[in-house]
Formats: sequence, structure tokens, C-alpha cells
Amino acid sequence: MSVKPESTPQQPAVTVLGLGPMGRALAGAFLAAGVRTTVWNRTPGREGDLVERGAAVAASAAEAVAASPVTVVCLVNYDATDAVLRQDAVEAALKGRALVNLSADTPGRARDTGGWAGEHGIAYVDGAIMTPADTIGSAGGVFLYSGPAAVYEEHRAVLDALGGSHTHLGEEVSRAAAYDIALLDIFWTSMAGYVHALALADAEGVSPRELAPFAAGIARILPPLFEEFAGDVEDGTYSGAINPLTSGVSTMGHVVHAAEAHAIDSGVMRAIEGLAVRTVALGHGADGFSRVAEVLRRR
Amino acid sequence: MSVKPESTPQQPAVTVLGLGPMGRALAGAFLAAGVRTTVWNRTPGREGDLVERGAAVAASAAEAVAASPVTVVCLVNYDATDAVLRQDAVEAALKGRALVNLSADTPGRARDTGGWAGEHGIAYVDGAIMTPADTIGSAGGVFLYSGPAAVYEEHRAVLDALGGSHTHLGEEVSRAAAYDIALLDIFWTSMAGYVHALALADAEGVSPRELAPFAAGIARILPPLFEEFAGDVEDGTYSGAINPLTSGVSTMGHVVHAAEAHAIDSGVMRAIEGLAVRTVALGHGADGFSRVAEVLRRR
Ligand SMILES: NC(=O)c1ccc[n+]([C@@H]2O[C@H](COP(=O)([O-])OP(=O)(O)OC[C@H]3O[C@@H](n4cnc5c(N)ncnc54)[C@H](OP(=O)(O)O)[C@@H]3O)[C@@H](O)[C@H]2O)c1
Ligand SMILES: NC(=O)c1ccc[n+]([C@@H]2O[C@H](COP(=O)([O-])OP(=O)(O)OC[C@H]3O[C@@H](n4cnc5c(N)ncnc54)[C@H](OP(=O)(O)O)[C@@H]3O)[C@@H](O)[C@H]2O)c1
Repeated sequence: MSVKPESTPQQPAVTVLGLGPMGRALAGAFLAAGVRTTVWNRTPGREGDLVERGAAVAASAAEAVAASPVTVVCLVNYDATDAVLRQDAVEAALKGRALVNLSADTPGRARDTGGWAGEHGIAYVDGAIMTPADTIGSAGGVFLYSGPAAVYEEHRAVLDALGGSHTHLGEEVSRAAAYDIALLDIFWTSMAGYVHALALADAEGVSPRELAPFAAGIARILPPLFEEFAGDVEDGTYSGAINPLTSGVSTMGHVVHAAEAHAIDSGVMRAIEGLAVRTVALGHGADGFSRVAEVLRRR
Repeated sequence: MSVKPESTPQQPAVTVLGLGPMGRALAGAFLAAGVRTTVWNRTPGREGDLVERGAAVAASAAEAVAASPVTVVCLVNYDATDAVLRQDAVEAALKGRALVNLSADTPGRARDTGGWAGEHGIAYVDGAIMTPADTIGSAGGVFLYSGPAAVYEEHRAVLDALGGSHTHLGEEVSRAAAYDIALLDIFWTSMAGYVHALALADAEGVSPRELAPFAAGIARILPPLFEEFAGDVEDGTYSGAINPLTSGVSTMGHVVHAAEAHAIDSGVMRAIEGLAVRTVALGHGADGFSRVAEVLRRR
């Protein structure tokens, strides 16, 4: 890492903008790793115990940015980062420094922010955090980055202080966001299936703690299926020899009927069943469920 | 296992009704384990290599049932099992024998079939298979059963020949189906999230095989979250300290916007976002996503 004048030659330094659950976790992990940490949040007083643990609290975003060679921003979305960063004083303070944006948003917003950073002489890396706030600082954290490799390499020692795995996905600034939304898609859809299953099981007299170990068993069969489906979609195979779509449509219907018989909203499963039925109607009933990915991409 | 006259004292025997991918896998595993196996399927000629491997093919369902002390039926659903089983000749052949129904359907249909079996003097166990056909005969198969424990215990040696894990969930005949639909709910919803993510990633230039290892990483964080959510729902806590619903709603919106910008149907994520927004509107924005399970159960 190249050390800027603000930091002693021995101690790396970072600024964290945003003190939601994730921003606080990031700042806490930096402090625990001995990184000099300056924090700022739109609403004051969200520092918790970070000050006791050694964080400096800046009075403004511009002052915060000026305190460190690299700033990590982690706000709810890019409307929020735009509101904080796209001000003259902040742009001036960021000029010639590095900005790592760990807020979540779309690939389009990442491209737009990359363009803005370029116009203002800001070394910009976009990123995404794929694991919950309580994994930060432990081996369990998963961080994705994209944008100029040179900028990433210059600051990776500071980022590595967050623990966990760090992957640079390429120079194209929107890649981290593309992975992020695709993985959030899987995450939220799986969690939606689970909360619906908890409601349905409860209606049938099966308690959440009775269901949970079996639900974990379902999660454990997913990784090899994900790998198989990736091959199906990339190679244009879609084998339904083991589990044809027609059979899947039948079991989706059981979920809908059983849930709706208990007056449980089943709009999510109805939407899934609709995609599967449409794929069967397009002549792919003997294929596997992976065919739905191809149908979703058709124009 | 008590051995009926049809079988030599040394060799257990089973009948398999249904030769779809799963019925064939079941019959194949029985044969591999040295169980004398009689098969029948509505459409003839679906035996594949089972005859070479030693299976006897019966000319009718009634003849098939009469050949063994226990019959395993595995058809698409209970409309199909009703069509096959609720005929005088089959009912007469089943009287005094055991029937294990491994077809998938709703808890209501399982209760109905349990009632029918009782009226006809058939020892009935309902069951569900939670893993794909290619796991049958290996350690990876997961089988659930419910109904009279005495019947299950009498025939479990034959069922154990299928390999994998076998769990008897209780005397209430619909319990296996209740777990089944709840777990299928999780399974199909997760797979739907994944195929949508593959389509979205592809539109952003990320290939299926690039995404798959990260998708597997998401699957691996699910089991501890499933356990935590089970506690939330059973205990009525719903802590959003780490990841509040308001933050989740924001990332769901990113998925919808990014996908729809590529003209990818996002009805599934829109339905999930709708549940989350409704839960926030009910005053639970600071809670975690587990609160949605409680909202789904409200009347
Ligand atoms: N929490 C997790 O487990 C987790 C996991 C992976 C990724 N992430 C991502 O990390 C990011 C931060 O998440 P989070 O959990 O810390 O909480 P969050 O609720 O998503 O974001 C809260 C932060 O955003 C700020 N903010 C919101 N609107 C703003 C605006 N218009 N101007 C300035 N600041 C604004 C808040 O400031 P105020 O305090 O002033 O409102 C607060 O600092 C999100 O993009 C999230 O998707 C979170
Ligand atoms: N395949 C898997 O990986 C898997 C995994 C877990 C659970 N299951 C469950 O196992 C069961 C069987 O699945 P499967 O994969 O073997 O294929 P399937 O397509 O679900 O079922 C095919 C079987 O159902 C029969 N059938 C359909 N309608 C019938 C009717 N009206 N009368 C008589 N027979 C009828 C078919 O006979 P014909 O050949 O005459 O059409 C064939 O034997 C399903 O409930 C499924 O949900 C399957």
C-alpha cells in the first residue's frame, strides 16, 4: 500500500462513510485490524462504541474523505452515495484519492458512478459485500470488486484487513454489481421460499424448528445442482431425464393448493409455476427446469 | 421384516408401481440390494434394463401387488395413484398387505388416501422422496415417512435397501406430505431464483459457469440463516439489527430494475418485493425478513 501524508508510515488509514449495520461492521473490523479509521454518517450519533475503540468522527463527508488515502462508502444505495459524494467539497477532497463503493445497486448505476469518478480524477473501485454484517472481520465475509486492477492492488492491503475472501472480477466497473444482483436474486428468492415454507409447515402443524434441519438439507443439495444447471445453460443442454419440467409443475401445484387451502398468499410460487407452465407450453416439458433460464432470455 | 409366503424366507420382496425416472431408480436400487422386485407401469415398455437386472414385469397392477408383501407406489401425483389403486381388483389384492406411497401430493390428499386404505384393510404408510432420482441407492437419498409406526417398522428393512436416510415423522399420515410440500417450496423457489440469476448475469456478460461457484457460496450461507429464522418465527423475535427489511427491499428493487432493463420477466422477484413492502407498510421495516413468515400466517 502506498501511504499518504495523512497516515504515519507505519499505520494504514481508511475513511468509512455510512454507519448502518454494515458500515459499523466495516469500521469495527478496520479498527480491530489496527487501521486508523475515520467515520461519518448523515445522521450523527450512529457511531456506537466505535469512538471508544479509536475511530475519529468527522464533522462532514468532505472532512472525512480528506483524512485518509482511501474511502470506503457503504450506504443503502447509489441515490444515497450520489447525495453524499456529488457535492463540490467532497469531489474536491476525493480528487487524487481512492474511493471503494461497497453499497449495493444495479450494474447501470455502477457504470454511471465509474464515469463520474473518472471525470473528477477519483480512483474508483466498485464492490459488493455478499455476506451479512456479522461476518465482517471473520473468515466468512465475501467481498467482490471490479474496476481498475491497479487501484484495487494499491489498496488491497487495507481491504484485506476486513477478513474473509476478496475477489477482483475484472476491469469492467459494473461486474461486481452484476454478480451482486444475480446473487441477491438467489438469496432473496431462497429466503422467500423458506419463509413461505415456514408459514405452510406451521399451518400443517410442523413447527419452524422441526422443519429447519430438513430445510438445511435442501440448501445442501443446491450447489451441485447449480453447477449442473450452469452447464445446461452454457452448453444448451437442458436434460430433464432425472426430473422433467412436467413433474416439477405438478409438485409446484401441490405447494400452491396446500398453501391457498390455508389462506396463505402464494403469489411467489404462482409466478414460478407460471414460468414453468409457459416453458412446458413452448414444447419443453421433457426438459429440466434449467430450460426456464433460456426462456427468460428469449426476445 | 416378516416374510410373506410369496417370498422365500431368505429373500425379501417388493412391488414397485410406476416406472417414471423415480420409479425406475427405486426398482433398480431394490434389485441392486438383492430384493426380489416386481414392477408395473401404466404404459408398458418403460422397464429399461430392469428385466435384465432381474425384475419381474406384472401384466396388471393387481397382479403386481399380489406378488409381494409390500408395494411401493411412485406416480406423478395422487390423482394417478387413485386411478391405479382405487379399483376392486387392486383393493382386493392390497387387503392385508402394506402400501407405501412415495408419490408427491398435498397433506390433504395423504389424509384422504390414509382413510381409503383404512376402509380397505390396507396397512398404509405415506412417504416422500426429497432428493433427485440419481441419489436413490446411494447415501445421498432422503426419504420421509408418516403413518402407523408399526407398519413402517415391519417393512423398514426393505425400505432401507434404497440407501440414504429414512425418517419416520410420526403417526399422523399427512406429516411426510407436509414436510414434502414445505421443502419443495424451498427447493423450487431457490431454483427459480437461480435460473433468473443465470438469465440476468448472462444479460450483464457474466457466464453461467462464472456465476455458479458464487451461487454455491450463497447456498452455503443458507443453513445457519434457516436455523436463525426458525428461532425468530417460533419465538416471535424477528431481529433486523443485522439486515433490516428496509435494506432488503432496496436490494430487491435493484434486481427487478436491472432484470427488467434487459426485458427479463421478474414476476417472481416482484412478488417477493411486494411481500416485503407490505410487511414494511405494516410497521415492521426495522425487523428482519423472517417477519414475512408471520405476516403470511395472519388472517
Ligand atoms: N447489513 C447487511 O448484512 C448487508 C449485507 C450485504 C450487503 N449490505 C449492503 O450494505 C449497504 C449498507 O447496508 P446497511 O445494512 O448498513 O444498512 P442500510 O439500511 O442499507 O443503509 C443505511 C445507511 O445508508 C445511509 N443513507 C440512506 N439514505 C441516505 C441518503 N439519502 N444520504 C446519505 N446517507 C443515506 C444511512 O444513513 P442514516 O443513518 O443517516 O439514515 C445509513 O448510513 C447496503 O447497500 C446493503 O445492501 C448489507
Ligand atoms: N424424479 C425425481 O428426481 C423426483 C425426486 C423426488 C420426488 N419425485 C416424485 O416421484 C414421483 C414420480 O416422479 P417421476 O420422476 O418418476 O416422474 P413423473 O413424471 O412425476 O411420474 C411419472 C409416472 O406417473 C405415471 N402416471 C402419470 N399419470 C398417471 C395416471 N393417470 N395413471 C397411472 N399412472 C400415471 C406415469 O405412467 P406412464 O409412464 O404410463 O405415463 C409414470 O409412471 C413424483 O411424485 C415426483 O414428484 C421425483
